[in-house]
Amino acid sequence: MKSKLKNTYRQVLRWGNPHYEEKLNEQGKKTIQDLVGIPVTEVNLPTFLPGEKEITLDKPIGLPPKYVLEFTDIVGAENIKTSDFDRVKHSAGKFYGELMQLRQEQVLTPPDLIITPSDEAQIETILQRCQQWKIPVVPQGLRSSVTKGVGLPDGGIALDLTAHLNQIISFDEVSQTVTAQSGITGPTLEKFLNSKGYTCGHFPQSFEFSTLGGWVAAKGAGQCSTGYGKIEDMVLSLKAYTPSGIIQNETYPKSAQGFDIMPLFIGSEGTLGVITQVTMKVRKLTIKNRSNACIIFKDFENAAAAMRTCIQGQFGLPHLFRISDHEETEVAFRMKGFEGSFSDKALQALGYKPNSRALMFISVEGDKDYTSFVVDKIKSTAKKFGGRSIGSKPTRKWLEQRYHSAYMREPLMDLGLMTDTIETAAMWANIEKLWKNVRTYIKARPNTVCMCHISHVYENGANLYFTFITPTDKTAPSEDYKTFHAGLVDTILANKGSLSHHHGIGRALAPWMKEKLGERSFELMKSIKKDLDPNGVMNPGALFD
Amino acid sequence: MKSKLKNTYRQVLRWGNPHYEEKLNEQGKKTIQDLVGIPVTEVNLPTFLPGEKEITLDKPIGLPPKYVLEFTDIVGAENIKTSDFDRVKHSAGKFYGELMQLRQEQVLTPPDLIITPSDEAQIETILQRCQQWKIPVVPQGLRSSVTKGVGLPDGGIALDLTAHLNQIISFDEVSQTVTAQSGITGPTLEKFLNSKGYTCGHFPQSFEFSTLGGWVAAKGAGQCSTGYGKIEDMVLSLKAYTPSGIIQNETYPKSAQGFDIMPLFIGSEGTLGVITQVTMKVRKLTIKNRSNACIIFKDFENAAAAMRTCIQGQFGLPHLFRISDHEETEVAFRMKGFEGSFSDKALQALGYKPNSRALMFISVEGDKDYTSFVVDKIKSTAKKFGGRSIGSKPTRKWLEQRYHSAYMREPLMDLGLMTDTIETAAMWANIEKLWKNVRTYIKARPNTVCMCHISHVYENGANLYFTFITPTDKTAPSEDYKTFHAGLVDTILANKGSLSHHHGIGRALAPWMKEKLGERSFELMKSIKKDLDPNGVMNPGALFD
Repeated sequence: MKSKLKNTYRQVLRWGNPHYEEKLNEQGKKTIQDLVGIPVTEVNLPTFLPGEKEITLDKPIGLPPKYVLEFTDIVGAENIKTSDFDRVKHSAGKFYGELMQLRQEQVLTPPDLIITPSDEAQIETILQRCQQWKIPVVPQGLRSSVTKGVGLPDGGIALDLTAHLNQIISFDEVSQTVTAQSGITGPTLEKFLNSKGYTCGHFPQSFEFSTLGGWVAAKGAGQCSTGYGKIEDMVLSLKAYTPSGIIQNETYPKSAQGFDIMPLFIGSEGTLGVITQVTMKVRKLTIKNRSNACIIFKDFENAAAAMRTCIQGQFGLPHLFRISDHEETEVAFRMKGFEGSFSDKALQALGYKPNSRALMFISVEGDKDYTSFVVDKIKSTAKKFGGRSIGSKPTRKWLEQRYHSAYMREPLMDLGLMTDTIETAAMWANIEKLWKNVRTYIKARPNTVCMCHISHVYENGANLYFTFITPTDKTAPSEDYKTFHAGLVDTILANKGSLSHHHGIGRALAPWMKEKLGERSFELMKSIKKDLDPNGVMNPGALFD
Repeated sequence: MKSKLKNTYRQVLRWGNPHYEEKLNEQGKKTIQDLVGIPVTEVNLPTFLPGEKEITLDKPIGLPPKYVLEFTDIVGAENIKTSDFDRVKHSAGKFYGELMQLRQEQVLTPPDLIITPSDEAQIETILQRCQQWKIPVVPQGLRSSVTKGVGLPDGGIALDLTAHLNQIISFDEVSQTVTAQSGITGPTLEKFLNSKGYTCGHFPQSFEFSTLGGWVAAKGAGQCSTGYGKIEDMVLSLKAYTPSGIIQNETYPKSAQGFDIMPLFIGSEGTLGVITQVTMKVRKLTIKNRSNACIIFKDFENAAAAMRTCIQGQFGLPHLFRISDHEETEVAFRMKGFEGSFSDKALQALGYKPNSRALMFISVEGDKDYTSFVVDKIKSTAKKFGGRSIGSKPTRKWLEQRYHSAYMREPLMDLGLMTDTIETAAMWANIEKLWKNVRTYIKARPNTVCMCHISHVYENGANLYFTFITPTDKTAPSEDYKTFHAGLVDTILANKGSLSHHHGIGRALAPWMKEKLGERSFELMKSIKKDLDPNGVMNPGALFD
């Protein structure tokens, strides 16, 4: 559907394509109203904080004109954007707090210029000038950060790498690697690889609106990370321009050349420099061999125990490996209209009861015999924990709609609902306690949906991914979120979860970093930043608060 | 066999147990004399540079007595050693250049004191004093470094962690982790884990004489690394004391808490601080499920192509995965008396010719069905490259003698032979060229044995491990080695091999680091060291030359 006005706040806050709007269907609306206690009559209320106003900034460009001229000289006028809409668009990612501000038509702190450099030489010069003149600069991909990873609190330059630094540099079929520029989008890179019969295997939820550089900088994980690894397992080498010079490592499968500094750029979130090239592992595309399964358990605890037993079973790895807790399972069943169906009654008769049962999704890629071998092993392990296979269709459906959920935030927020996700990682011994205590915190809010899944699985632990939907305080929606979010992070940390498993830190979680990592470790991080970025111009405020 | 004299140079240079001497058997002697052209009559010549003299140092302790008293106060007199023998023993590792110096009864630069701290608090105080008084300090395990990783060019303190910091701290069967002090030896840690039904899966060639801290500091790889991973894949967290404070990270399976500084200590080789505790992944012990195979190929190129196809085959991983080139295969056949046997004739009739054929060793651990599944897949893949299975016995034999080869250096050097190993890593596309050109360099020396194997295998590349045996220039053995070794390293780098895959850098390879890593990256490494060790007291000379 097309929005009537152009250049609205709404177009900036929208997930992905600014012209595409997602609606809740009637089944979805009914489910939500049941769960969060909105009376039926209110479902069709006017949109809460629609942000449909056209953007006009009354904030002029803060950079002195001579600097603007100098940057124009470097990249050419065609590579500099300064419109109000562009400045707001490049001021924010997709953090809930940012979306709520945009809905309120509040002016975020915008960049002065959006520069789309044509090559690495231009980046080098731009960084030299920014360093010299102490101008903040933020490397940007497609700005899908949900932790306020992009932003310019004091103006400066948004360095958009997607316009020109988006090429494949080389592809090595013998060593199975691809080298590409960091501004290439996930779909473009994957399409190229697929055409050669390969895949990168990295499919974060934001895949459609993500870039290679963003994957690395934010230290993300894809939906198939259990088999293909997290991004830090995929990067073999990279090149980064820092205000202090170029860091580039040679490509080896492994080495012992002293301590390795390349990994410092994975998770650097633009604070150390601009990643311009990345060499990634690739694998042969084996979608045609995919084996899928879906298993239902009587409760989340048994699902988690089965999952742990499988991942520690030394019989190979699934690629997609996922369990939903009872509430996420229930919401999924309701949304899909499964609840109350004949199949549902059959499952209930077998003891898989609503508000207790938990789903597991499995998809294995690779060699044809291997995929069925691993799926069979998982099924037989699951049986020992009361798991019952319910066919491969739910997993196939899940895969078809794999990028869908991010689009739901907009229609939910339109209903005046606070909806966000938060994620963490923990060791297996700690998973259950962490899950319960975070749930308790979230559910203490009245009429609140709290769904949780495990979707990135390791021998020693896993992530926990929480999605909550709750009526917001419409009189102070930003403050309501801020207080609730802070308590949520505190609860995670008090229960020994990591500050993030794959969303990253940005500005949203930076205030917790020092306490979480320890003062000496944090000092070392700052010292590394100081060495590469002496004047602190790179993405100021991210990671280090 | 017992050596007559006590406290000789010989006892220091000997691999492992100072009282255990290994002899070449008659078959071995005959093979070697054939290969390196020593006439039969000379095989029983007097031992070349036996180093049987008792050690006496005419170098007094260089530290001012008040410092010695202070250190004695900190750890107690019982934890300080100053004998001449101990000072020489703790002055060196097992680098060829060190062994040759010891054989010549040359005094290496010895530490002033060997301190065996009782706990972390003592280490903290010792580092504070060393920092304050600018006294060099080298953390030591069992000193099996073959790249001159331990050493005190200007005297100072050898901090021996094996005496007291050798305890298991905790074992978590649910999360499958063990936390232990860094001075624990490989066999002690493994024995503990085996008693619980687990394994660490890390078996470097030096396993018998290695410590957990050494594994991590030197960034090693074990014989089963293809399945279990290299040490950097096994460490989940660690604690290190640096002159600037304590660095310790929490234990997570993975996280995205900004860029991760913990990996900086993996491969730090004692230059950043003292690693005191490590938390490692462990796996269930599955030796009873082991599936072994041995496959012969017509040449090394086909063996390598089969190996690459297997590791990129996405059907699971073998744990031990190893191929020997034609010369290593031939030497093994001769040493074992296989050459000329009935079986040998049969293989030759099938086209597996001497000086061309190449062996592959496979051992898979894990789930019982999985181990046979993977071995079957490897066998059927190998067939496509002309590989022929010759049963599991050679691999079982290999496993029985897995730590044997390091003991052979002493009797070979006794014959006046220069014998050493050097290793590197490369991408698959570059493996064959690198192998050929390094061989050409080594074989340019007359009467020289050059054996090579691949033993750590990755989807994107592998290591190459060269062993050479060559008559030394008896008039200038140290200089002969130095020149030959430098040319060898240059040849590896010119052919795009890494400076090391798992031996590490030490002082032997430090002179190449800056050129290899690039000036800016090297500067960043120095900056990190400066932050943690402002006065440069930690293992001076290692990594940074």
